[in-house]
Amino acid sequence: MRTAYHHQLAELTVELSQMCGLANGAMRRATEALLEADLDATEEVIREHDRMVVMRARAEREAFALLALQQPVAGELRAVFSAIQLIADIERMGALAVHVAKIARREHPNQVLPEKVRACFADMAKVAIALGDSATQVLISHDPQQAARLREQDDAMDELYRQLFSVLLDDDWTDNIPVAVDAALLGRFYERFADHAVEVGRRVVFMVSGDLPAQDEISTY
Amino acid sequence: MRTAYHHQLAELTVELSQMCGLANGAMRRATEALLEADLDATEEVIREHDRMVVMRARAEREAFALLALQQPVAGELRAVFSAIQLIADIERMGALAVHVAKIARREHPNQVLPEKVRACFADMAKVAIALGDSATQVLISHDPQQAARLREQDDAMDELYRQLFSVLLDDDWTDNIPVAVDAALLGRFYERFADHAVEVGRRVVFMVSGDLPAQDEISTY
Repeated sequence: MRTAYHHQLAELTVELSQMCGLANGAMRRATEALLEADLDATEEVIREHDRMVVMRARAEREAFALLALQQPVAGELRAVFSAIQLIADIERMGALAVHVAKIARREHPNQVLPEKVRACFADMAKVAIALGDSATQVLISHDPQQAARLREQDDAMDELYRQLFSVLLDDDWTDNIPVAVDAALLGRFYERFADHAVEVGRRVVFMVSGDLPAQDEISTY
Repeated sequence: MRTAYHHQLAELTVELSQMCGLANGAMRRATEALLEADLDATEEVIREHDRMVVMRARAEREAFALLALQQPVAGELRAVFSAIQLIADIERMGALAVHVAKIARREHPNQVLPEKVRACFADMAKVAIALGDSATQVLISHDPQQAARLREQDDAMDELYRQLFSVLLDDDWTDNIPVAVDAALLGRFYERFADHAVEVGRRVVFMVSGDLPAQDEISTY
């Protein structure tokens, strides 16, 4: 009985990490869709999200069953408790990748972004995907140091997000309004993706230690 | 022992509803801040969010303690399970109100929004706050019909959100780019606020029936 229980808990942990890997792969492909106007990539991201929805429902059922049938305590209860919270964050990461892909699809075969913000988006994507990788790993390793570092990794995203808005709101911006609106929303999607990855780190710290690190302050955007 | 347990569970339910009422009050005040350039309202929304953060931490501790010490089953376990998920949604509703207030504060004493989208924002705010009210009530009533109706109420938001973007992306838009960028982001904040309220309805249906309604499809923005 206890063996089956530990097996189920280990399986839930692996599934969470797989979901996070799926969301991160989706953001990687969505970024290709965005920066290279790659139509196959957009379609793949949108189609693959169905898998995420199925995995989410399954992980929720499993977490519920663990609570109902096994009544975990202490560290194991913290693991299930955190899983219940993180399932939503991770699915949201996947949904944000779909948002990016859908904007790319709408503009295909044209580029969504003008030249002067493309490097900024390439950097934001790099940081977002590195955060997604760290989150995927830390869900398995449960290494509290690595988990805490996600927050520091996110500083680079905050800086890039500020840079993007300083370009967008600069008087020298000569592109039209639809382009600026898309760039602002896309910037927000990458920034939110990173925030959810940071939340994974925060919850893993709680899972391991029982202490939940403070959240960051809410920014202007 | 069981009496104390039912008292704790009832208290958690009330706290969730209070948090939702707090988030909704914040969105109401943030909308005054936005549409009437009311500086007191902006400061109040930003300051009051600290209460939300404290309430969130407390509700999480209580939900955890209920699982650890009382090992609820069936409908009561569904109530705690849903509470764990909804705490994050409700805190996010409050954070979105802070985002609205911070944009209003940055532009004070000027108006953020040009005349031609103000009516659309007034309508979006009305729908968002009505959804927030329904969510606050349904967290207490646990009425599955009322919970299911939140999704229908959200259709009006989707329509207003589309309208906003058709105005923003229209060639007749003559305001400058920073104004368009703010309007796009603010529109998204109201739309996301409504989505989280709909999620409250979805989870209350699960709490009562054990069945979780399907999520809506992901839109382009």
